[in-house]
Amino acid sequence: MQLAPETPSIEIETPIMFFDTDAGGIVHNLAYLRFIETARTLFAEQLGMNLAAMAKEGEFVVLVRTEIDYKQKAAFGDSLLIRGELASVGRMRFWCAFRVHRKSDECLVAESRQMLAMIRMPSGRPIPIPAELRERYPHLTSRMSRSAG
Amino acid sequence: MQLAPETPSIEIETPIMFFDTDAGGIVHNLAYLRFIETARTLFAEQLGMNLAAMAKEGEFVVLVRTEIDYKQKAAFGDSLLIRGELASVGRMRFWCAFRVHRKSDECLVAESRQMLAMIRMPSGRPIPIPAELRERYPHLTSRMSRSAG
Amino acid sequence: MQLAPETPSIEIETPIMFFDTDAGGIVHNLAYLRFIETARTLFAEQLGMNLAAMAKEGEFVVLVRTEIDYKQKAAFGDSLLIRGELASVGRMRFWCAFRVHRKSDECLVAESRQMLAMIRMPSGRPIPIPAELRERYPHLTSRMSRSAG
Amino acid sequence: MQLAPETPSIEIETPIMFFDTDAGGIVHNLAYLRFIETARTLFAEQLGMNLAAMAKEGEFVVLVRTEIDYKQKAAFGDSLLIRGELASVGRMRFWCAFRVHRKSDECLVAESRQMLAMIRMPSGRPIPIPAELRERYPHLTSRMSRSAG
Repeated sequence: MQLAPETPSIEIETPIMFFDTDAGGIVHNLAYLRFIETARTLFAEQLGMNLAAMAKEGEFVVLVRTEIDYKQKAAFGDSLLIRGELASVGRMRFWCAFRVHRKSDECLVAESRQMLAMIRMPSGRPIPIPAELRERYPHLTSRMSRSAG
Repeated sequence: MQLAPETPSIEIETPIMFFDTDAGGIVHNLAYLRFIETARTLFAEQLGMNLAAMAKEGEFVVLVRTEIDYKQKAAFGDSLLIRGELASVGRMRFWCAFRVHRKSDECLVAESRQMLAMIRMPSGRPIPIPAELRERYPHLTSRMSRSAG
Repeated sequence: MQLAPETPSIEIETPIMFFDTDAGGIVHNLAYLRFIETARTLFAEQLGMNLAAMAKEGEFVVLVRTEIDYKQKAAFGDSLLIRGELASVGRMRFWCAFRVHRKSDECLVAESRQMLAMIRMPSGRPIPIPAELRERYPHLTSRMSRSAG
Repeated sequence: MQLAPETPSIEIETPIMFFDTDAGGIVHNLAYLRFIETARTLFAEQLGMNLAAMAKEGEFVVLVRTEIDYKQKAAFGDSLLIRGELASVGRMRFWCAFRVHRKSDECLVAESRQMLAMIRMPSGRPIPIPAELRERYPHLTSRMSRSAG
Protein backbone atom coordinates (compact mmCIF):
# COMPACT_ATOMS: atom_id res chain seq x y z
CA MET A 1 0.00 0.00 0.00
CA GLN A 2 1.26 3.41 -0.91
CA LEU A 3 0.48 6.57 0.95
CA ALA A 4 -0.75 9.51 -1.10
CA PRO A 5 2.00 12.15 -1.32
CA GLU A 6 1.43 15.24 0.74
CA THR A 7 0.13 18.42 -0.87
CA PRO A 8 2.88 21.02 -0.50
CA SER A 9 1.81 24.10 1.41
CA ILE A 10 3.10 27.23 3.07
CA GLU A 11 2.00 29.60 5.83
CA ILE A 12 3.32 33.07 6.42
CA GLU A 13 2.24 35.65 8.95
CA THR A 14 2.11 39.34 8.16
CA PRO A 15 1.25 42.24 10.43
CA ILE A 16 -0.91 44.92 8.79
CA MET A 17 0.75 48.24 8.07
CA PHE A 18 -0.92 51.62 7.50
CA PHE A 19 0.08 51.43 3.83
CA ASP A 20 -2.01 48.24 3.60
CA THR A 21 -5.18 50.08 4.66
CA ASP A 22 -7.30 52.77 3.05
CA ALA A 23 -9.59 55.58 4.16
CA GLY A 24 -12.42 53.07 4.60
CA GLY A 25 -10.44 52.03 7.69
CA ILE A 26 -9.70 48.51 6.49
CA VAL A 27 -7.11 46.58 4.49
CA HIS A 28 -7.19 47.61 0.83
CA ASN A 29 -8.02 44.95 -1.77
CA LEU A 30 -4.62 45.32 -3.47
CA ALA A 31 -2.72 44.63 -0.25
CA TYR A 32 -4.04 41.06 -0.06
CA LEU A 33 -2.57 40.30 -3.47
CA ARG A 34 0.77 41.65 -2.28
CA PHE A 35 0.61 39.40 0.80
CA ILE A 36 -0.29 36.46 -1.44
CA GLU A 37 2.60 37.23 -3.80
CA THR A 38 5.00 37.17 -0.88
CA ALA A 39 3.65 33.79 0.21
CA ARG A 40 3.75 32.52 -3.39
CA THR A 41 7.36 33.62 -3.87
CA LEU A 42 8.52 31.89 -0.70
CA PHE A 43 6.42 28.87 -1.68
CA ALA A 44 8.12 28.67 -5.09
CA GLU A 45 11.51 28.55 -3.36
CA GLN A 46 10.18 25.82 -1.09
CA LEU A 47 9.05 23.87 -4.16
CA GLY A 48 12.61 24.00 -5.43
CA MET A 49 12.37 26.91 -7.87
CA ASN A 50 15.34 29.25 -7.46
CA LEU A 51 13.59 32.31 -8.84
CA ALA A 52 16.65 34.58 -8.63
CA ALA A 53 18.82 32.10 -10.54
CA MET A 54 16.00 31.60 -13.05
CA ALA A 55 15.70 35.38 -13.54
CA LYS A 56 19.39 35.52 -14.43
CA GLU A 57 18.67 32.95 -17.16
CA GLY A 58 15.71 35.03 -18.36
CA GLU A 59 13.14 32.57 -16.98
CA PHE A 60 10.21 33.87 -14.96
CA VAL A 61 7.15 32.43 -13.28
CA VAL A 62 4.24 34.68 -14.29
CA LEU A 63 0.64 35.06 -13.26
CA VAL A 64 -1.83 34.03 -15.93
CA ARG A 65 -5.04 34.39 -13.90
CA THR A 66 -6.08 35.54 -10.45
CA GLU A 67 -9.41 34.94 -8.76
CA ILE A 68 -9.92 36.45 -5.34
CA ASP A 69 -12.95 36.64 -3.07
CA TYR A 70 -13.00 39.22 -0.32
CA LYS A 71 -15.02 37.79 2.54
CA GLN A 72 -14.33 39.76 5.69
CA LYS A 73 -12.51 42.91 6.61
CA ALA A 74 -9.20 43.22 8.42
CA ALA A 75 -7.83 46.33 10.08
CA PHE A 76 -4.62 47.92 11.26
CA GLY A 77 -3.57 46.02 14.37
CA ASP A 78 -4.62 42.65 13.02
CA SER A 79 -2.09 40.07 11.91
CA LEU A 80 -2.90 37.91 8.92
CA LEU A 81 -1.97 34.32 8.18
CA ILE A 82 -1.52 33.59 4.47
CA ARG A 83 -1.82 29.91 3.71
CA GLY A 84 -1.03 28.62 0.27
CA GLU A 85 -0.94 25.24 -1.38
CA LEU A 86 -0.21 23.76 -4.75
CA ALA A 87 -3.63 22.99 -6.20
CA SER A 88 -2.73 21.33 -9.51
CA VAL A 89 0.17 20.98 -11.91
CA GLY A 90 -0.01 20.67 -15.69
CA ARG A 91 2.61 20.60 -18.38
CA MET A 92 2.52 24.33 -19.07
CA ARG A 93 0.65 25.74 -16.06
CA PHE A 94 0.01 25.24 -12.39
CA TRP A 95 -2.55 26.53 -9.91
CA CYS A 96 -1.99 27.71 -6.36
CA ALA A 97 -4.76 28.26 -3.81
CA PHE A 98 -4.53 30.75 -0.96
CA ARG A 99 -6.54 31.51 2.13
CA VAL A 100 -6.02 34.59 4.27
CA HIS A 101 -7.11 34.30 7.90
CA ARG A 102 -7.15 36.85 10.68
CA LYS A 103 -4.73 35.47 13.24
CA SER A 104 -6.67 36.49 16.34
CA ASP A 105 -9.90 34.58 15.58
CA GLU A 106 -9.00 32.44 12.51
CA CYS A 107 -11.74 34.25 10.55
CA LEU A 108 -11.40 33.65 6.78
CA VAL A 109 -10.80 37.08 5.28
CA ALA A 110 -10.01 36.32 1.63
CA GLU A 111 -9.63 33.34 -0.64
CA SER A 112 -7.76 33.24 -3.91
CA ARG A 113 -6.75 30.92 -6.75
CA GLN A 114 -3.97 31.80 -9.15
CA MET A 115 -2.86 30.12 -12.36
CA LEU A 116 0.82 30.48 -13.19
CA ALA A 117 3.01 29.74 -16.16
CA MET A 118 6.68 30.04 -16.96
CA ILE A 119 8.07 32.24 -19.69
CA ARG A 120 11.43 33.04 -21.21
CA MET A 121 12.21 36.72 -21.54
CA PRO A 122 12.57 38.89 -23.53
CA SER A 123 10.49 36.88 -26.02
CA GLY A 124 7.75 36.13 -23.51
CA ARG A 125 7.50 32.56 -24.88
CA PRO A 126 5.99 29.96 -22.52
CA ILE A 127 8.27 27.19 -21.31
CA PRO A 128 7.22 23.90 -19.65
CA ILE A 129 6.76 23.54 -15.91
CA PRO A 130 9.69 21.53 -14.45
CA ALA A 131 8.86 17.84 -14.86
CA GLU A 132 9.96 17.11 -11.27
CA LEU A 133 7.02 19.15 -9.99
CA ARG A 134 4.51 16.98 -11.82
CA GLU A 135 6.30 13.78 -10.93
CA ARG A 136 6.60 14.62 -7.27
CA TYR A 137 2.87 15.32 -6.86
CA PRO A 138 1.00 12.95 -9.19
CA HIS A 139 -2.22 13.42 -7.19
CA LEU A 140 -2.16 17.09 -8.27
CA THR A 141 -1.44 16.38 -11.91
CA SER A 142 -4.64 14.55 -12.70
CA ARG A 143 -6.72 17.54 -11.70
CA MET A 144 -5.42 19.45 -14.72
CA SER A 145 -6.14 16.65 -17.22
CA ARG A 146 -9.39 18.25 -18.33
CA SER A 147 -7.68 21.48 -19.30
CA ALA A 148 -5.06 22.26 -21.92
CA GLY A 149 -2.68 23.03 -19.05
CA MET B 1 -40.33 51.45 -30.73
CA GLN B 2 -37.92 51.89 -27.91
CA LEU B 3 -34.15 51.85 -28.20
CA ALA B 4 -32.24 49.69 -25.77
CA PRO B 5 -30.48 51.93 -23.23
CA GLU B 6 -26.78 52.25 -23.73
CA THR B 7 -24.36 50.30 -21.54
CA PRO B 8 -22.40 52.86 -19.53
CA SER B 9 -18.66 52.71 -20.08
CA ILE B 10 -15.42 54.54 -19.45
CA GLU B 11 -11.97 54.74 -21.03
CA ILE B 12 -8.86 56.10 -19.38
CA GLU B 13 -5.32 56.24 -20.66
CA THR B 14 -2.32 55.68 -18.43
CA PRO B 15 1.37 55.88 -19.26
CA ILE B 16 3.47 53.15 -17.64
CA MET B 17 5.85 54.23 -14.89
CA PHE B 18 8.93 52.39 -13.61
CA PHE B 19 7.05 51.64 -10.37
CA ASP B 20 4.50 49.74 -12.50
CA THR B 21 7.16 47.36 -13.81
CA ASP B 22 9.30 44.68 -12.21
CA ALA B 23 12.69 43.07 -12.75
CA GLY B 24 11.15 40.81 -15.39
CA GLY B 25 11.14 43.98 -17.49
CA ILE B 26 7.36 44.18 -17.83
CA VAL B 27 4.33 45.63 -16.05
CA HIS B 28 3.77 43.86 -12.72
CA ASN B 29 0.47 42.03 -12.19
CA LEU B 30 -0.54 44.28 -9.29
CA ALA B 31 -0.17 47.45 -11.37
CA TYR B 32 -3.04 46.43 -13.67
CA LEU B 33 -5.40 46.22 -10.70
CA ARG B 34 -4.32 49.71 -9.66
CA PHE B 35 -5.04 51.02 -13.18
CA ILE B 36 -8.41 49.27 -13.11
CA GLU B 37 -9.23 50.75 -9.70
CA THR B 38 -8.54 54.23 -11.05
CA ALA B 39 -10.86 53.59 -14.00
CA ARG B 40 -13.49 52.08 -11.69
CA THR B 41 -13.37 55.05 -9.33
CA LEU B 42 -13.83 57.58 -12.13
CA PHE B 43 -16.54 55.32 -13.58
CA ALA B 44 -18.44 55.28 -10.29
CA GLU B 45 -18.45 59.07 -10.30
CA GLN B 46 -19.72 59.01 -13.88
CA LEU B 47 -22.51 56.65 -12.80
CA GLY B 48 -23.60 59.26 -10.26
CA MET B 49 -21.95 57.87 -7.12
CA ASN B 50 -20.24 60.64 -5.18
CA LEU B 51 -17.74 58.39 -3.42
CA ALA B 52 -16.21 61.17 -1.31
CA ALA B 53 -19.61 62.30 -0.03
CA MET B 54 -20.56 58.67 0.59
CA ALA B 55 -17.34 58.08 2.55
CA LYS B 56 -18.26 60.98 4.85
CA GLU B 57 -21.54 59.14 5.56
CA GLY B 58 -19.63 55.92 6.20
CA GLU B 59 -20.79 54.31 2.96
CA PHE B 60 -18.24 52.58 0.74
CA VAL B 61 -18.27 50.63 -2.49
CA VAL B 62 -16.14 47.54 -1.89
CA LEU B 63 -14.70 44.77 -4.02
CA VAL B 64 -16.26 41.36 -3.39
CA ARG B 65 -14.50 39.45 -6.14
CA THR B 66 -11.86 40.05 -8.78
CA GLU B 67 -11.08 37.85 -11.76
CA ILE B 68 -8.24 38.91 -14.00
CA ASP B 69 -6.56 37.21 -16.96
CA TYR B 70 -3.12 38.37 -17.98
CA LYS B 71 -2.82 37.89 -21.75
CA GLN B 72 0.11 39.89 -23.06
CA LYS B 73 2.96 41.86 -21.61
CA ALA B 74 3.35 45.62 -21.55
CA ALA B 75 6.56 47.53 -20.89
CA PHE B 76 7.87 50.88 -19.76
CA GLY B 77 7.27 53.28 -22.64
CA ASP B 78 3.88 51.79 -23.54
CA SER B 79 0.65 53.61 -22.78
CA LEU B 80 -2.36 51.58 -21.73
CA LEU B 81 -6.04 52.15 -22.39
CA ILE B 82 -8.29 50.90 -19.60
CA ARG B 83 -11.85 50.36 -20.77
CA GLY B 84 -14.57 49.56 -18.30
CA GLU B 85 -18.27 48.96 -18.50
CA LEU B 86 -21.12 48.12 -16.20
CA ALA B 87 -21.75 44.43 -16.80
CA SER B 88 -24.77 43.79 -14.58
CA VAL B 89 -26.63 45.29 -11.62
CA GLY B 90 -28.41 43.42 -8.88
CA ARG B 91 -30.09 44.53 -5.68
CA MET B 92 -27.02 44.06 -3.48
CA ARG B 93 -24.17 43.73 -5.98
CA PHE B 94 -22.98 44.82 -9.39
CA TRP B 95 -20.32 43.64 -11.82
CA CYS B 96 -17.93 45.72 -13.88
CA ALA B 97 -15.88 44.39 -16.79
CA PHE B 98 -12.51 45.83 -17.81
CA ARG B 99 -10.18 45.39 -20.75
CA VAL B 100 -6.66 46.77 -20.84
CA HIS B 101 -5.21 47.44 -24.29
CA ARG B 102 -1.78 48.60 -25.34
CA LYS B 103 -2.42 51.96 -27.00
CA SER B 104 0.14 51.60 -29.81
CA ASP B 105 -1.30 48.43 -31.37
CA GLU B 106 -4.62 47.89 -29.57
CA CYS B 107 -3.31 44.52 -28.33
CA LEU B 108 -5.47 43.12 -25.48
CA VAL B 109 -3.12 42.92 -22.48
CA ALA B 110 -5.46 42.00 -19.62
CA GLU B 111 -9.12 41.36 -19.00
CA SER B 112 -10.91 41.56 -15.69
CA ARG B 113 -14.33 41.23 -14.08
CA GLN B 114 -15.05 42.60 -10.63
CA MET B 115 -18.08 42.19 -8.37
CA LEU B 116 -18.79 45.08 -6.05
CA ALA B 117 -21.09 45.70 -3.14
CA MET B 118 -21.84 48.61 -0.85
CA ILE B 119 -21.25 48.57 2.88
CA ARG B 120 -21.78 50.85 5.83
CA MET B 121 -18.78 51.32 8.07
CA PRO B 122 -17.72 50.70 10.78
CA SER B 123 -20.18 47.77 10.99
CA GLY B 124 -19.30 46.47 7.51
CA ARG B 125 -23.00 45.71 6.89
CA PRO B 126 -24.07 45.49 3.24
CA ILE B 127 -26.47 48.13 1.95
CA PRO B 128 -28.53 48.00 -1.29
CA ILE B 129 -27.20 49.30 -4.60
CA PRO B 130 -28.95 52.61 -5.45
CA ALA B 131 -32.27 51.77 -7.13
CA GLU B 132 -31.63 54.38 -9.84
CA LEU B 133 -28.74 52.30 -11.15
CA ARG B 134 -30.98 49.27 -11.70
CA GLU B 135 -33.82 51.37 -13.12
CA ARG B 136 -31.60 53.26 -15.51
CA TYR B 137 -30.11 50.11 -17.06
CA PRO B 138 -32.85 47.45 -17.05
CA HIS B 139 -30.99 45.45 -19.74
CA LEU B 140 -28.16 44.94 -17.22
CA THR B 141 -30.43 43.93 -14.37
CA SER B 142 -31.76 40.75 -15.88
CA ARG B 143 -28.26 39.31 -16.19
CA MET B 144 -28.07 39.07 -12.41
CA SER B 145 -31.39 37.26 -12.01
CA ARG B 146 -29.68 33.89 -11.80
CA SER B 147 -27.58 34.93 -8.87
CA ALA B 148 -28.45 36.01 -5.37
CA GLY B 149 -27.11 39.49 -6.34
CA MET C 1 20.96 92.31 -23.61
CA GLN C 2 20.09 88.65 -23.17
CA LEU C 3 17.09 87.31 -21.38
CA ALA C 4 17.71 84.66 -18.76
CA PRO C 5 16.53 81.27 -20.11
CA GLU C 6 13.35 79.97 -18.58
CA THR C 7 13.47 77.32 -15.86
CA PRO C 8 11.81 74.21 -17.28
CA SER C 9 8.80 73.02 -15.31
CA ILE C 10 5.85 70.66 -15.39
CA GLU C 11 2.41 70.44 -13.79
CA ILE C 12 0.28 67.35 -13.61
CA GLU C 13 -3.07 66.83 -11.91
CA THR C 14 -3.99 63.64 -10.13
CA PRO C 15 -7.24 62.65 -8.46
CA ILE C 16 -6.80 60.79 -5.16
CA MET C 17 -7.74 57.12 -5.14
CA PHE C 18 -8.60 54.94 -2.14
CA PHE C 19 -5.29 53.10 -2.61
CA ASP C 20 -3.55 56.46 -2.04
CA THR C 21 -5.11 56.83 1.42
CA ASP C 22 -4.71 54.97 4.71
CA ALA C 23 -6.80 54.20 7.77
CA GLY C 24 -5.89 57.62 9.18
CA GLY C 25 -8.33 58.87 6.54
CA ILE C 26 -5.77 60.83 4.56
CA VAL C 27 -3.29 60.38 1.71
CA HIS C 28 -0.46 58.08 2.74
CA ASN C 29 3.09 59.44 2.73
CA LEU C 30 4.24 56.95 0.07
CA ALA C 31 1.53 58.01 -2.38
CA TYR C 32 3.04 61.50 -2.72
CA LEU C 33 6.32 60.02 -3.87
CA ARG C 34 4.45 57.99 -6.47
CA PHE C 35 2.68 61.15 -7.72
CA ILE C 36 6.05 62.92 -7.83
CA GLU C 37 7.64 60.07 -9.76
CA THR C 38 4.89 60.28 -12.36
CA ALA C 39 5.51 64.03 -12.72
CA ARG C 40 9.28 63.47 -12.82
CA THR C 41 8.98 60.80 -15.53
CA LEU C 42 6.83 62.99 -17.77
CA PHE C 43 9.18 65.91 -17.01
CA ALA C 44 12.21 63.89 -18.12
CA GLU C 45 10.51 63.22 -21.44
CA GLN C 46 9.75 66.92 -21.75
CA LEU C 47 13.44 67.68 -21.11
CA GLY C 48 14.30 65.48 -24.06
CA MET C 49 15.20 62.24 -22.30
CA ASN C 50 13.62 59.27 -24.01
CA LEU C 51 13.60 57.01 -20.96
CA ALA C 52 12.23 53.96 -22.79
CA ALA C 53 14.89 54.19 -25.50
CA MET C 54 17.54 54.76 -22.82
CA ALA C 55 16.33 51.69 -20.89
CA LYS C 56 16.82 49.58 -24.03
CA GLU C 57 20.45 50.79 -24.06
CA GLY C 58 20.80 49.93 -20.36
CA GLU C 59 20.81 53.59 -19.28
CA PHE C 60 18.62 54.68 -16.39
CA VAL C 61 17.94 57.88 -14.49
CA VAL C 62 18.03 56.93 -10.80
CA LEU C 63 17.18 58.64 -7.55
CA VAL C 64 20.19 59.43 -5.38
CA ARG C 65 18.42 61.40 -2.65
CA THR C 66 14.88 62.38 -1.71
CA GLU C 67 13.86 65.04 0.77
CA ILE C 68 10.15 65.52 1.37
CA ASP C 69 8.24 67.65 3.85
CA TYR C 70 4.64 66.78 4.58
CA LYS C 71 2.84 70.01 5.39
CA GLN C 72 -0.90 69.48 5.14
CA LYS C 73 -3.22 66.56 4.72
CA ALA C 74 -5.21 65.64 1.60
CA ALA C 75 -8.15 63.26 1.45
CA PHE C 76 -10.10 61.08 -0.93
CA GLY C 77 -12.13 63.42 -3.11
CA ASP C 78 -9.34 66.01 -3.39
CA SER C 79 -7.39 66.49 -6.58
CA LEU C 80 -3.70 67.30 -6.35
CA LEU C 81 -1.51 69.43 -8.58
CA ILE C 82 2.08 68.24 -8.76
CA ARG C 83 4.41 70.97 -9.92
CA GLY C 84 8.02 70.19 -10.70
CA GLU C 85 10.97 72.15 -11.96
CA LEU C 86 14.60 71.59 -12.76
CA ALA C 87 16.45 73.07 -9.80
CA SER C 88 20.08 72.61 -10.84
CA VAL C 89 22.22 70.60 -13.24
CA GLY C 90 25.74 69.35 -12.67
CA ARG C 91 28.04 67.12 -14.65
CA MET C 92 27.01 63.89 -12.91
CA ARG C 93 23.81 64.85 -11.09
CA PHE C 94 20.76 67.09 -11.23
CA TRP C 95 18.16 68.24 -8.75
CA CYS C 96 14.42 68.55 -9.28
CA ALA C 97 12.07 70.40 -6.94
CA PHE C 98 8.41 69.52 -6.49
CA ARG C 99 5.43 71.10 -4.79
CA VAL C 100 2.13 69.34 -4.28
CA HIS C 101 -0.93 71.58 -3.94
CA ARG C 102 -4.53 70.73 -3.22
CA LYS C 103 -6.38 71.84 -6.35
CA SER C 104 -9.48 73.21 -4.62
CA ASP C 105 -7.75 75.80 -2.44
CA GLU C 106 -4.12 75.84 -3.69
CA CYS C 107 -2.98 74.78 -0.20
CA LEU C 108 0.65 73.52 -0.22
CA VAL C 109 0.43 69.89 0.91
CA ALA C 110 3.98 68.62 0.40
CA GLU C 111 7.30 69.85 -0.87
CA SER C 112 10.15 67.72 -2.12
CA ARG C 113 13.64 67.91 -3.60
CA GLN C 114 15.24 65.00 -5.37
CA MET C 115 18.77 64.48 -6.63
CA LEU C 116 19.14 62.23 -9.65
CA ALA C 117 21.98 60.62 -11.50
CA MET C 118 22.33 58.42 -14.55
CA ILE C 119 23.71 54.91 -14.49
CA ARG C 120 24.52 52.18 -16.93
CA MET C 121 23.14 48.77 -16.04
CA PRO C 122 23.94 46.05 -15.18
CA SER C 123 27.20 47.51 -13.79
CA GLY C 124 25.46 50.38 -12.03
CA ARG C 125 28.27 52.74 -13.11
CA PRO C 126 27.40 56.46 -13.17
CA ILE C 127 27.38 58.17 -16.57
CA PRO C 128 27.43 61.95 -17.23
CA ILE C 129 24.24 64.01 -17.48
CA PRO C 130 23.64 64.92 -21.17
CA ALA C 131 25.70 68.05 -21.93
CA GLU C 132 22.72 69.65 -23.72
CA LEU C 133 20.88 69.86 -20.42
CA ARG C 134 23.64 71.90 -18.79
CA GLU C 135 24.13 74.04 -21.90
CA ARG C 136 20.47 74.79 -22.34
CA TYR C 137 20.03 76.04 -18.76
CA PRO C 138 23.28 77.76 -17.75
CA HIS C 139 21.48 79.64 -14.94
CA LEU C 140 20.81 76.25 -13.29
CA THR C 141 24.35 74.97 -13.68
CA SER C 142 26.05 77.47 -11.44
CA ARG C 143 23.94 76.43 -8.49
CA MET C 144 25.73 73.07 -8.44
CA SER C 145 29.24 74.53 -8.50
CA ARG C 146 29.61 74.23 -4.76
CA SER C 147 28.93 70.52 -4.82
CA ALA C 148 30.78 67.65 -6.39
CA GLY C 149 27.77 67.23 -8.75
CA MET D 1 28.34 56.45 38.46
CA GLN D 2 25.38 56.19 36.09
CA LEU D 3 25.43 54.39 32.79
CA ALA D 4 24.06 56.24 29.79
CA PRO D 5 20.70 54.73 28.83
CA GLU D 6 20.75 52.63 25.70
CA THR D 7 19.51 54.03 22.42
CA PRO D 8 16.44 51.99 21.44
CA SER D 9 16.77 50.24 18.12
CA ILE D 10 15.19 47.64 15.90
CA GLU D 11 16.27 45.30 13.11
CA ILE D 12 14.01 43.54 10.67
CA GLU D 13 14.87 41.35 7.73
CA THR D 14 12.92 41.42 4.51
CA PRO D 15 13.33 39.29 1.40
CA ILE D 16 12.96 41.22 -1.86
CA MET D 17 9.85 40.48 -3.92
CA PHE D 18 9.34 41.12 -7.64
CA PHE D 19 6.88 43.90 -6.74
CA ASP D 20 9.79 45.63 -4.96
CA THR D 21 11.83 45.81 -8.17
CA ASP D 22 11.44 47.68 -11.43
CA ALA D 23 12.42 47.22 -15.07
CA GLY D 24 15.88 48.59 -14.26
CA GLY D 25 16.36 45.20 -12.61
CA ILE D 26 16.83 46.54 -9.10
CA VAL D 27 14.78 47.46 -6.03
CA HIS D 28 12.62 50.53 -6.73
CA ASN D 29 13.17 53.64 -4.62
CA LEU D 30 9.64 53.52 -3.19
CA ALA D 31 10.09 49.98 -1.89
CA TYR D 32 12.78 51.07 0.58
CA LEU D 33 10.37 53.51 2.18
CA ARG D 34 7.83 50.72 2.53
CA PHE D 35 10.45 48.51 4.22
CA ILE D 36 11.37 51.40 6.50
CA GLU D 37 7.72 52.02 7.38
CA THR D 38 7.36 48.40 8.40
CA ALA D 39 10.43 48.68 10.64
CA ARG D 40 9.19 52.01 12.03
CA THR D 41 5.76 50.59 12.83
CA LEU D 42 7.18 47.61 14.71
CA PHE D 43 9.65 49.97 16.40
CA ALA D 44 6.84 52.23 17.61
CA GLU D 45 5.19 49.21 19.24
CA GLN D 46 8.51 48.31 20.85
CA LEU D 47 8.75 51.88 22.19
CA GLY D 48 5.41 51.37 23.90
CA MET D 49 3.09 53.04 21.41
CA ASN D 50 0.02 50.92 20.76
CA LEU D 51 -0.72 52.35 17.32
CA ALA D 52 -3.93 50.37 16.82
CA ALA D 53 -5.36 51.51 20.16
CA MET D 54 -4.24 55.06 19.39
CA ALA D 55 -5.95 54.95 15.98
CA LYS D 56 -9.21 54.02 17.71
CA GLU D 57 -8.83 57.20 19.79
CA GLY D 58 -8.13 59.20 16.62
CA GLU D 59 -4.44 59.61 17.43
CA PHE D 60 -1.85 58.93 14.73
CA VAL D 61 1.92 59.11 14.40
CA VAL D 62 2.58 60.91 11.10
CA LEU D 63 5.61 61.57 8.95
CA VAL D 64 6.65 65.22 8.84
CA ARG D 65 9.85 64.82 6.84
CA THR D 66 11.78 62.07 5.09
CA GLU D 67 15.37 62.21 3.91
CA ILE D 68 16.72 59.18 2.12
CA ASP D 69 20.00 58.53 0.32
CA TYR D 70 20.20 55.67 -2.12
CA LYS D 71 23.75 54.35 -2.05
CA GLN D 72 23.87 50.93 -3.65
CA LYS D 73 21.51 48.73 -5.58
CA ALA D 74 19.78 45.59 -4.38
CA ALA D 75 18.14 42.96 -6.53
CA PHE D 76 15.57 40.19 -6.45
CA GLY D 77 17.14 37.34 -4.50
CA ASP D 78 18.82 39.62 -1.97
CA SER D 79 17.55 39.92 1.59
CA LEU D 80 17.68 43.29 3.28
CA LEU D 81 18.25 44.17 6.91
CA ILE D 82 16.45 47.32 8.01
CA ARG D 83 17.98 48.81 11.13
CA GLY D 84 16.30 51.70 12.87
CA GLU D 85 16.97 53.71 15.97
CA LEU D 86 15.46 56.59 17.86
CA ALA D 87 17.69 59.54 16.94
CA SER D 88 16.15 62.32 19.06
CA VAL D 89 12.98 63.17 20.93
CA GLY D 90 11.43 66.61 21.35
CA ARG D 91 8.20 67.81 22.89
CA MET D 92 6.25 67.74 19.63
CA ARG D 93 8.45 65.72 17.29
CA PHE D 94 10.95 62.89 17.16
CA TRP D 95 13.47 61.66 14.62
CA CYS D 96 14.24 58.08 13.65
CA ALA D 97 17.29 57.00 11.66
CA PHE D 98 17.37 53.95 9.41
CA ARG D 99 20.03 52.03 7.54
CA VAL D 100 19.29 49.36 4.98
CA HIS D 101 21.98 46.75 4.46
CA ARG D 102 22.20 43.89 2.03
CA LYS D 103 22.24 40.79 4.23
CA SER D 104 24.74 38.78 2.19
CA ASP D 105 27.63 41.26 2.36
CA GLU D 106 26.48 43.91 4.87
CA CYS D 107 26.77 46.54 2.10
CA LEU D 108 24.97 49.78 3.04
CA VAL D 109 22.23 50.18 0.43
CA ALA D 110 20.23 53.15 1.73
CA GLU D 111 20.18 55.51 4.66
CA SER D 112 17.22 57.54 5.87
CA ARG D 113 16.15 59.97 8.56
CA GLN D 114 12.51 60.65 9.30
CA MET D 115 10.89 63.26 11.52
CA LEU D 116 7.58 62.25 13.04
CA ALA D 117 4.83 64.00 14.93
CA MET D 118 1.56 62.97 16.52
CA ILE D 119 -1.79 64.33 15.45
CA ARG D 120 -5.40 64.00 16.47
CA MET D 121 -7.81 63.27 13.65
CA PRO D 122 -10.02 64.43 12.08
CA SER D 123 -8.76 67.93 12.99
CA GLY D 124 -5.14 67.10 12.15
CA ARG D 125 -4.01 69.08 15.23
CA PRO D 126 -0.57 68.17 16.63
CA ILE D 127 -0.44 66.59 20.08
CA PRO D 128 2.65 66.23 22.32
CA ILE D 129 4.95 63.23 22.14
CA PRO D 130 4.36 60.99 25.23
CA ALA D 131 6.47 62.43 28.08
CA GLU D 132 7.70 58.92 28.99
CA LEU D 133 9.60 58.76 25.71
CA ARG D 134 11.57 61.91 26.52
CA GLU D 135 12.11 60.89 30.13
CA ARG D 136 13.27 57.41 29.28
CA TYR D 137 15.95 58.61 26.85
CA PRO D 138 17.32 61.91 28.18
CA HIS D 139 20.47 61.54 26.07
CA LEU D 140 18.26 61.77 22.96
CA THR D 141 16.30 64.78 24.17
CA SER D 142 19.14 67.23 24.23
CA ARG D 143 19.84 66.71 20.56
CA MET D 144 16.56 68.41 19.70
CA SER D 145 17.20 71.50 21.84
CA ARG D 146 18.41 73.50 18.86
CA SER D 147 15.20 72.96 16.95
CA ALA D 148 11.62 73.95 17.66
CA GLY D 149 10.81 70.21 18.10
